[in-house]
Amino acid sequence: MNQPNCMVAQSGGPTAAINASLSGVISGILNSSKYHTCYGAVNGVLGILNGNYINLTERFSCSEDLDKLKHTPAMYLGSCRHKLPNYKDDDSQYVYIFHQFQLLGIQAFFYIGGNDSMDTVLKLSDYAQKINSDIRIIGIPKTIDNDLCATDHTPGFGSAAKFIASSLLEIAHDTFIYAVKSVTIVEIMGRDAGWLTASSSLARNSYNSAPHLIYLPESVFDKERFLEDIQEQLAIRDNVIIAVSEGIRDKDGNYITSSKSAVDDFGHKQLSGAGKSLEFLVKENIGVKVRSIELNVLQRCSAHLASKTDLDEAFAQGQKGVSLAEDGVTAAMVCIRRISNHPYTVSYDSAAIRSIANGAKSVPKEWINDRGNDILPEMIEYLYPLIQGETEVSYENGIPSYMNVSHLDRA
Amino acid sequence: MNQPNCMVAQSGGPTAAINASLSGVISGILNSSKYHTCYGAVNGVLGILNGNYINLTERFSCSEDLDKLKHTPAMYLGSCRHKLPNYKDDDSQYVYIFHQFQLLGIQAFFYIGGNDSMDTVLKLSDYAQKINSDIRIIGIPKTIDNDLCATDHTPGFGSAAKFIASSLLEIAHDTFIYAVKSVTIVEIMGRDAGWLTASSSLARNSYNSAPHLIYLPESVFDKERFLEDIQEQLAIRDNVIIAVSEGIRDKDGNYITSSKSAVDDFGHKQLSGAGKSLEFLVKENIGVKVRSIELNVLQRCSAHLASKTDLDEAFAQGQKGVSLAEDGVTAAMVCIRRISNHPYTVSYDSAAIRSIANGAKSVPKEWINDRGNDILPEMIEYLYPLIQGETEVSYENGIPSYMNVSHLDRA
Repeated sequence: MNQPNCMVAQSGGPTAAINASLSGVISGILNSSKYHTCYGAVNGVLGILNGNYINLTERFSCSEDLDKLKHTPAMYLGSCRHKLPNYKDDDSQYVYIFHQFQLLGIQAFFYIGGNDSMDTVLKLSDYAQKINSDIRIIGIPKTIDNDLCATDHTPGFGSAAKFIASSLLEIAHDTFIYAVKSVTIVEIMGRDAGWLTASSSLARNSYNSAPHLIYLPESVFDKERFLEDIQEQLAIRDNVIIAVSEGIRDKDGNYITSSKSAVDDFGHKQLSGAGKSLEFLVKENIGVKVRSIELNVLQRCSAHLASKTDLDEAFAQGQKGVSLAEDGVTAAMVCIRRISNHPYTVSYDSAAIRSIANGAKSVPKEWINDRGNDILPEMIEYLYPLIQGETEVSYENGIPSYMNVSHLDRA
Repeated sequence: MNQPNCMVAQSGGPTAAINASLSGVISGILNSSKYHTCYGAVNGVLGILNGNYINLTERFSCSEDLDKLKHTPAMYLGSCRHKLPNYKDDDSQYVYIFHQFQLLGIQAFFYIGGNDSMDTVLKLSDYAQKINSDIRIIGIPKTIDNDLCATDHTPGFGSAAKFIASSLLEIAHDTFIYAVKSVTIVEIMGRDAGWLTASSSLARNSYNSAPHLIYLPESVFDKERFLEDIQEQLAIRDNVIIAVSEGIRDKDGNYITSSKSAVDDFGHKQLSGAGKSLEFLVKENIGVKVRSIELNVLQRCSAHLASKTDLDEAFAQGQKGVSLAEDGVTAAMVCIRRISNHPYTVSYDSAAIRSIANGAKSVPKEWINDRGNDILPEMIEYLYPLIQGETEVSYENGIPSYMNVSHLDRA
């Protein structure tokens, strides 16, 4: 037990790339001269609190399994939405966690997640400093929302963007077939940031100009202007296709939604229905056929259409996390820096977790048109490289072949 | 103009395979010693009534384009939902259509579509017989619903089934991550027939038992039993995943839907909301996390995840239509006969259109369990071969590369 070991866990919402980062962490530890065993805590920090671990070094000794893990959607280790209390108010969970770390010989802890998970990384880092622990605490980013600060973009975003752009193109093919005026509203995830909705613009090609209108949460949403925009589009084409973020809000900050709001543990409003709400609005005010489509969880779990760039970068960031810990870095998150777009090149780095946790990165105003109903070329330039490349999906019995996650399907 | 020519058109709702059948028709005519030019009417029979044609022989002289067409979702020629009147009441449209046929030297007309399109094939066939026209009228089936009579299964169904099964597996990965009780309801297309919803069962594999409950429109839906079924499942597992048809009805034949009903030209109720309605039901009656997911149009247009078996069969049925016409067959629909499952082999044939039009094929009661909440092994045996094989999708700029359909994107 005195060999230096590591622990890794995953937290927050799923993406198509979060297991690629896990695969990168395991790969980094397998190749490390410093660390021995890699434990995976099941269901995020809850796995530590409940003593629920998997020995990942043993489980993934075969490189084929590690590759399969890289291409499997959602979290192999399961997730949680557990918010640690401030240790100054109640340090009991911290005492327990660091006692477990000691028992297992943990010298580095890697937490793969989004904004809320980086809050956990910050809290564990602060507590480690307080008790003079030299356990390295490293955050590895993931979120389809792409709203983490201090990094060019987040693992998981590129794959979701690729699914959204591809689906938008397929929806355009589906829509153009009828010679009747119609409005199609596609609701896309992104509570506070419009990155995903903006990525629908990548569906435009030599023959397809859809989506014809794009509404991000960064711009105030005005129903009257929205109806005007549609009328303007209907004057020049039969089939108007609109990409709209689930998080659009009016000038008073109220969500455009037809459903009642609930609030989760982190104080986020649970949304649904921006698309449906606008469908009713168009139905009542414009006399054309209208439908709304919610891409829903498919946009974050469709690993069969993952971006190769995204998965490769997610894997590399997992590896980078291990090398940062080996180098003595702590209280940090792995970051990606874009060096150039032509050719697209990046480097990996880190940033202090304090500068990241609980922040959020929005789409710059300069990348949105004045009318607030489309994005500008700078945005395309930013998005384009992130969805490039396809992954080799293997199929078994006609469906994608992914890593067995039966340990999560609790009876 | 006296060379014997052909016309083809597409009608009804889109599928991922309907252009594969078009590709097969064009290929058949290109290789025919009897027929010369293949015209495509744009937007179904409306294209004939409006004089809107494309010379497909010229357009698809390059075999690469024909292959690209095979893999492009929805209708290259556009669609319509135009119901021809009974010619005995009003023959003006028939007179016009057959006059156009004469002007263009049309000797065979191929109509690719579903139930409503076969109604058009029947009416045109009857009228041709009445006026002693020897123009061959051939229906080529397509419908994701798989509800056409006289054929083992319909082109488009296998690809939709593959998308549904794959998405269901990805949704399972997305769902299993939280260690909290939850219910996930996936709403699947299929107004009167449960074939598509049943195909969700193909998501089950060595580690995934979801969907845990499957409700088809062929069984009476009872809300109390549904809640009992869920409670029973929640007693043995944390995350219950349910596949439900949009067309489920109670014992009085009323749709389980939370939205108001509209009626289209063919008298079909426009549905939405079975999943949403059940989400509210579970929320009110069972105290667990619940969400509903509507696969929506993605299940019919996601050509990037098409079944190779489906596209190959769709193409072959297009070719078969041409050879039937060459052999003098008329007033018929191309059919597929299953010869064996091990190995899976089929043959192509035809059936009188009168035996098909306006009929509908339901899931046999013997393939549904007594409780009406799952399907039986005979169903899997039937479905399994139809989703086998993947197609080679080419990508351009990170998104699928499909056939240019700008001629449909009307300004």
